[in-house]
Amino acid sequence: MTTTRSEHDLLGDLEVPAEAYYGVHTARAVDNFPISGIRLGIYPSFVNALAAVKQAAATANKAIGVLDPAKADAIIAAAEEIRAGRLHDEFVVDMIQGGAGTSTNMNANEVLANRGLELLGYERGDYAHLHPLQDVNLGQSTNDVYPTAVNIALDAYVVRLDSALGVLVESFARKGQEFADVVKMGRTQLQDAVPMTLGREFAAFAATLTEDRQRLREARLLLHEINLGGTAIGTELNAHPEYRARALAELRAITGIETLVSATDLVEATSDVGHFVQLSGVLKRVAVKLSKICNDLRLLSSGPRAGFNEIVLPARQAGSSIMPGKVNPVIPEVVNQVAFEVIGNDVTVTLAAEGGQLQLNAFEPIIAHSLFASLQHLARAAVVLAEKCVDGITANADLLRSRVADSIGLVTALSPVIGYENATAVAQEALLSGRGVAEIVESRGLLDRAAIDALLDAAVRPVPASQ
Amino acid sequence: MTTTRSEHDLLGDLEVPAEAYYGVHTARAVDNFPISGIRLGIYPSFVNALAAVKQAAATANKAIGVLDPAKADAIIAAAEEIRAGRLHDEFVVDMIQGGAGTSTNMNANEVLANRGLELLGYERGDYAHLHPLQDVNLGQSTNDVYPTAVNIALDAYVVRLDSALGVLVESFARKGQEFADVVKMGRTQLQDAVPMTLGREFAAFAATLTEDRQRLREARLLLHEINLGGTAIGTELNAHPEYRARALAELRAITGIETLVSATDLVEATSDVGHFVQLSGVLKRVAVKLSKICNDLRLLSSGPRAGFNEIVLPARQAGSSIMPGKVNPVIPEVVNQVAFEVIGNDVTVTLAAEGGQLQLNAFEPIIAHSLFASLQHLARAAVVLAEKCVDGITANADLLRSRVADSIGLVTALSPVIGYENATAVAQEALLSGRGVAEIVESRGLLDRAAIDALLDAAVRPVPASQ
Amino acid sequence: MTTTRSEHDLLGDLEVPAEAYYGVHTARAVDNFPISGIRLGIYPSFVNALAAVKQAAATANKAIGVLDPAKADAIIAAAEEIRAGRLHDEFVVDMIQGGAGTSTNMNANEVLANRGLELLGYERGDYAHLHPLQDVNLGQSTNDVYPTAVNIALDAYVVRLDSALGVLVESFARKGQEFADVVKMGRTQLQDAVPMTLGREFAAFAATLTEDRQRLREARLLLHEINLGGTAIGTELNAHPEYRARALAELRAITGIETLVSATDLVEATSDVGHFVQLSGVLKRVAVKLSKICNDLRLLSSGPRAGFNEIVLPARQAGSSIMPGKVNPVIPEVVNQVAFEVIGNDVTVTLAAEGGQLQLNAFEPIIAHSLFASLQHLARAAVVLAEKCVDGITANADLLRSRVADSIGLVTALSPVIGYENATAVAQEALLSGRGVAEIVESRGLLDRAAIDALLDAAVRPVPASQ
Amino acid sequence: MTTTRSEHDLLGDLEVPAEAYYGVHTARAVDNFPISGIRLGIYPSFVNALAAVKQAAATANKAIGVLDPAKADAIIAAAEEIRAGRLHDEFVVDMIQGGAGTSTNMNANEVLANRGLELLGYERGDYAHLHPLQDVNLGQSTNDVYPTAVNIALDAYVVRLDSALGVLVESFARKGQEFADVVKMGRTQLQDAVPMTLGREFAAFAATLTEDRQRLREARLLLHEINLGGTAIGTELNAHPEYRARALAELRAITGIETLVSATDLVEATSDVGHFVQLSGVLKRVAVKLSKICNDLRLLSSGPRAGFNEIVLPARQAGSSIMPGKVNPVIPEVVNQVAFEVIGNDVTVTLAAEGGQLQLNAFEPIIAHSLFASLQHLARAAVVLAEKCVDGITANADLLRSRVADSIGLVTALSPVIGYENATAVAQEALLSGRGVAEIVESRGLLDRAAIDALLDAAVRPVPASQ
Repeated sequence: MTTTRSEHDLLGDLEVPAEAYYGVHTARAVDNFPISGIRLGIYPSFVNALAAVKQAAATANKAIGVLDPAKADAIIAAAEEIRAGRLHDEFVVDMIQGGAGTSTNMNANEVLANRGLELLGYERGDYAHLHPLQDVNLGQSTNDVYPTAVNIALDAYVVRLDSALGVLVESFARKGQEFADVVKMGRTQLQDAVPMTLGREFAAFAATLTEDRQRLREARLLLHEINLGGTAIGTELNAHPEYRARALAELRAITGIETLVSATDLVEATSDVGHFVQLSGVLKRVAVKLSKICNDLRLLSSGPRAGFNEIVLPARQAGSSIMPGKVNPVIPEVVNQVAFEVIGNDVTVTLAAEGGQLQLNAFEPIIAHSLFASLQHLARAAVVLAEKCVDGITANADLLRSRVADSIGLVTALSPVIGYENATAVAQEALLSGRGVAEIVESRGLLDRAAIDALLDAAVRPVPASQ
Repeated sequence: MTTTRSEHDLLGDLEVPAEAYYGVHTARAVDNFPISGIRLGIYPSFVNALAAVKQAAATANKAIGVLDPAKADAIIAAAEEIRAGRLHDEFVVDMIQGGAGTSTNMNANEVLANRGLELLGYERGDYAHLHPLQDVNLGQSTNDVYPTAVNIALDAYVVRLDSALGVLVESFARKGQEFADVVKMGRTQLQDAVPMTLGREFAAFAATLTEDRQRLREARLLLHEINLGGTAIGTELNAHPEYRARALAELRAITGIETLVSATDLVEATSDVGHFVQLSGVLKRVAVKLSKICNDLRLLSSGPRAGFNEIVLPARQAGSSIMPGKVNPVIPEVVNQVAFEVIGNDVTVTLAAEGGQLQLNAFEPIIAHSLFASLQHLARAAVVLAEKCVDGITANADLLRSRVADSIGLVTALSPVIGYENATAVAQEALLSGRGVAEIVESRGLLDRAAIDALLDAAVRPVPASQ
Repeated sequence: MTTTRSEHDLLGDLEVPAEAYYGVHTARAVDNFPISGIRLGIYPSFVNALAAVKQAAATANKAIGVLDPAKADAIIAAAEEIRAGRLHDEFVVDMIQGGAGTSTNMNANEVLANRGLELLGYERGDYAHLHPLQDVNLGQSTNDVYPTAVNIALDAYVVRLDSALGVLVESFARKGQEFADVVKMGRTQLQDAVPMTLGREFAAFAATLTEDRQRLREARLLLHEINLGGTAIGTELNAHPEYRARALAELRAITGIETLVSATDLVEATSDVGHFVQLSGVLKRVAVKLSKICNDLRLLSSGPRAGFNEIVLPARQAGSSIMPGKVNPVIPEVVNQVAFEVIGNDVTVTLAAEGGQLQLNAFEPIIAHSLFASLQHLARAAVVLAEKCVDGITANADLLRSRVADSIGLVTALSPVIGYENATAVAQEALLSGRGVAEIVESRGLLDRAAIDALLDAAVRPVPASQ
Repeated sequence: MTTTRSEHDLLGDLEVPAEAYYGVHTARAVDNFPISGIRLGIYPSFVNALAAVKQAAATANKAIGVLDPAKADAIIAAAEEIRAGRLHDEFVVDMIQGGAGTSTNMNANEVLANRGLELLGYERGDYAHLHPLQDVNLGQSTNDVYPTAVNIALDAYVVRLDSALGVLVESFARKGQEFADVVKMGRTQLQDAVPMTLGREFAAFAATLTEDRQRLREARLLLHEINLGGTAIGTELNAHPEYRARALAELRAITGIETLVSATDLVEATSDVGHFVQLSGVLKRVAVKLSKICNDLRLLSSGPRAGFNEIVLPARQAGSSIMPGKVNPVIPEVVNQVAFEVIGNDVTVTLAAEGGQLQLNAFEPIIAHSLFASLQHLARAAVVLAEKCVDGITANADLLRSRVADSIGLVTALSPVIGYENATAVAQEALLSGRGVAEIVESRGLLDRAAIDALLDAAVRPVPASQ
């Protein structure tokens, strides 16, 4: 009694586990690429996207009449099962793989064929009745199927990141309103500058991330141009003349992405990875923004006694194994690190993109892996930041107010009246003596107290962001 | 008889060259930042942009009535001279500078004040009659002037790169048409794949760069949102209530950029550098594309006898000091290197952007320097590539055609009829025996010669890109 | 009957699974950092290193007399179990975590305490008898324990990479010998240059990677300087005066790393991550070398008919779902992609290193994660490259020899005798006419046939690498 | 009367300026590479290194007897002039150039030939009497001359950076001593941790940069392995059998670098750029360290009233065009930016290194340019930082001391005695109530005042770094 079945490819025979839905091509790939231990199945949206493309192809081929309807129906049924979440653990090839995605496509072809065979009442591996390449892959090449599936998976991850950023934007916007009247010193180059409100500081975080969501949506649109139907190098070799348009229509219907279009130049589209580079650049931008914001949150909450101590982040865990009572900004810290990872991934994507040659980029698997990781980690980090940190931030409003009253930067508000050089002298005296700006200006006879107060009142008056 | 004049700042007195239009603040900066030797004046569009912003501010302040008309007119006249190309060598601060651009703004203020004084009939340095800070910088801060000027300068450089890419796109498109009937083997993963035409290969280069031009134009639009009028931290402190709108209108008129708008959230806009990160990401994308194309050109022209030898690049110079007659692909090679520089610059921009803190990014000078260099070098590289290389490329059409006839990849066209497994066997026999695919298929009795020829004819028939 | 137990920290009570060896601090961290799904336990050498450090500390504290011997023995026994591979699945915190490694240290403290309690006959969570912080963490801080453990884990991974590169070097060296007499054209800038042997080409791959092994060993030594005993910020606060030396000695004994030393400046060592940056730089260098070599292997094996076709890589899997019989260089391709990942990781490490502030770098977790992944993937890739590709490479020796005979580059060997300018003219005629260099030189009367043959014979004579 | 002379190459005739020492090959290159405007002559050490290599070659060839002594002497004399600083403005090719450095080598060959001709009493361009290729370049190829010269130039720049870092280390070390008794709060993760001294903080800066100097010296040694004599691809084709050893000996003598050695595997050495990657990695490490230090300096000097305000940086220039009296940390800021540039350059170097193919890396020019810039800017930045910033730093010692007394972190010192959980409760009460730690511990009856004082005294007692 055997627990394997024998399959065959151009290298000869190979035993695969009898119960496996994948076949010989997948098994070769598992053996060839023991790199990261991160298997295709770890990204469900990618597995779903592969199934969606295969389903669209089978439906199109059936409609055109080049694929036996019973075979097509078996493929379609198997694909729908996968898209419902089944058989994902049969997608076992390492995400970091050679072959430009061929092994991923083969894995999908084989799982669909074997599940289809099962549905048709045949044994797994009995490919005479449903063939992974001649039937499931009919009219297709890895070189159009794989990038199309990557695009569709990325689309799903981008939507999730956009939504996660939305949660974070809302959180910052609420704090912007909550702190609208909390006057504080603004800082440039870490030096005390002029007064502002804590509300505007947090509203600016919301505003800057709102812009990123817009960039993300623009980058998302580039994913909707696909090369399905181009086959091996974009010349549509071996695809039926009606196949491309029909497969596109089916894929639109299956994925619900109405804006999917066929690339104008399929040769260009087959080798091009510009949309991945663009998306990665936008993710890097999001990472830069999040990292800057987290740097600010950590700095503003530094202390409690020997730091800025402007805001208090909610405690999430004990901060130290040796220093009792210490609470650290662990949530911003983890977001910073995700940002660093995403920026590194952007360089990986860049190198892989630059390394493409002639009619295909063989390095799309590492591009896909990097982008999936960046998108997923950013989305999780954004929600964690909102829910476990920003939502619970409180302000040390009294301290902030007293620092404004005490600040030398107030002299800026008087400068247009007393002149830049007088103002400089006042600032220098304030710094050396420790005295207040208003007092010095009055004592020097530059302005009377009422005029000073009027100018300073105007300077510290909160100005709303939307004007 | 002295060759210096004495000026004063918060550090005390300093002698500056009597003939200099710049003053004490600039001189301090020159002393403080002896880093790269690359002075502001090396980027004329940046100097012009600084002058444009100062001119807009003076015009606005005059109209509002807060600046003496004679002073305003002197500033405006001086600014127009600079924008006409004069006094650029007075912009002497190093591009790599601390102070978040303050020294650049000071340099502009001082040159304008001293040239203005001269026009008004006063001595340089006689700031009682026209003050660099109180008059030229009236209602302004480095923190709104500097990024606004950087945006306007970038706009000019982006327009130039777009135009340069246009030249290159046209060059590739012409070759696409010229080579429309040159049949060749397409390659995936450097292995012979299926037939295509050299025309489609070159047309794809044109197509992919055309997409980049579109991305560049989208990134350009982000530059048109400016923070002028926000002053120190975006709260508009010390600017007249009417100043922002008027200065914007003037700047539109002076620069001719109709789409300039004021940022909605000026606090956000003052610290944000997202538009620089976005632009840098797009430049990186352009670099990746150019590098990939140049890699292909070098590979396709490899040989002449032990390489691909598909195309011949025009000889531009002797290729070797030791190997007579050797001609190298020097133009693609230099473009590759520009691409590597631009990709490195993107990382520099990323780090500088991430390092911004609180209400300002102090590292905008290195961002500006990196982007200016990337834009300028890419634009020059694109034109050099078009004019010194692509325009002169010729094809070894006969060799290409014979390789198609000889190729094993032709079996792909027969595979739908004879089946994937028969086709694999034929390919393996062809590889081992050196015989032709058609001959083997016929000898195995899989197809008759007429059927084979019909399928192969279809496979090698040129398919135009636009369909 | 309950399946949880209640634990307590500064945030209050929390239920943890009753059977868990980890405790409240770990549970908080799991909740706080749902980022990558990659848990500490995925890196066994890291878990072992944490156990080794804890064991060394307990042994030292016992010897000094500050830790109850029974408690110490329980900790030691638990640590030895972990180092034997047990309980690794209790290390559940995400590798990407905030808190500068505190949660990792807490996870180790808790697993050791609870396993120790069990060994002592108490219930898990009954910390009165063995406390995670007061006993297991005695005299320690995350800030010395965590980086020390990271160093020790890295040491193990570096040793493994060194060994893997050794396998690859041997493989290339064997091919260097096998191909010692295979004459071929060398190429510079992808253009035919002068003759060499395929053996020297492969020997050079062995030589260049041998140099990398040396760099790796140098970088490894930097890992042996540890800050254990410095506690929170390097001032040794709360550690017994004898603790540092004793703990070091124990750690040497446990790990077998004789060259472990205590940092001279513990304050510096606590915040410094220079050794990580150095190691990452060396890994990037290894990646660059491997990527260059794989690019060459892919290029030399391009074809089979329309490419260089100099060598044949062993077939590892079917190359295409559409092109029957196509075999792709999938092993070099996957190595290229690992290289791109490692280069990206280097940027991540760089950003994390740059972001450290004051007395600690809070971003060591992402540094550790990036380095572990780079080291592990590189090691696997090197072995895969050796065993699944290089070992099976064969040469197309006849084709290579004929190309040398046919080459224009041979003229270089004649140039010293006939002069650079004559040689250039000969090369140009050869290129245009398709004739051979020897024939043209003879027909121009520059040299007689015997002289030509003598010079060419010398030029193509194999020269061994070791001379 | 003509102002040009006519020269000839494989492309035909070309007019070059009559007074130019460079010739046709240089002129072609100037025309081909109008990229950066940064010419070879901007790096004097590089021009000197090129002259040194040419001088060594001529001396060797003369000694061997393959070069006419009079010609050799003319070349040697011309090279010595260049090494004395003359004719550097004749090195006019753009640093960013295609051709793998051929144009640089040609530029050197031509300047030496024409200056040599002049010394011999001939006209420039009269190459029958001294030929740029047959005489000046005798036994050489760009592919051994160029990388050898780059190595020698880098050696000089590395020595200068090492020296500059020495200046900075000394400056930090002096401050370390000056501040040895200034007690302050140490911080981890920006949160108040435990006491230390400002002296140790500055001493750590000195220590960490001292380690970098060591790394730099290790990387420098790799530059001393050269491939001179390997000619085109490392097979020594066309070089006399004695040439390599003699040229090496001469080059040692000329440069004074006693440790120069010939690479063991010249084929490997000709294509390898691993030493550049290693050096760039070390420069990146230096950049990371400098940036971290400058981040700390800026943070510690933040304020003056709403920041950390621990130290005062010397004022170097007015900080703002709008905020009178504001002084910014402009020197650390410019150093940060140099660091970002260097980190970006490292990516450029990485890409160029990875892109090398087969027997040569065609992208060495951008590698050289990037490394020269990084080295030069870092060296200048280090000296500026020392002399214009660190030397003048003062401490706010009283404020620092009072913060220690006021800190909650002091509870850490009591924790070993009162227990982690009691200490946590005390810390939480201190935070909420604003009361001091000692007071709370006493009021809770955990310790008496004497015990508390003894523990706290020990905790804040300065501990010297060298112990």
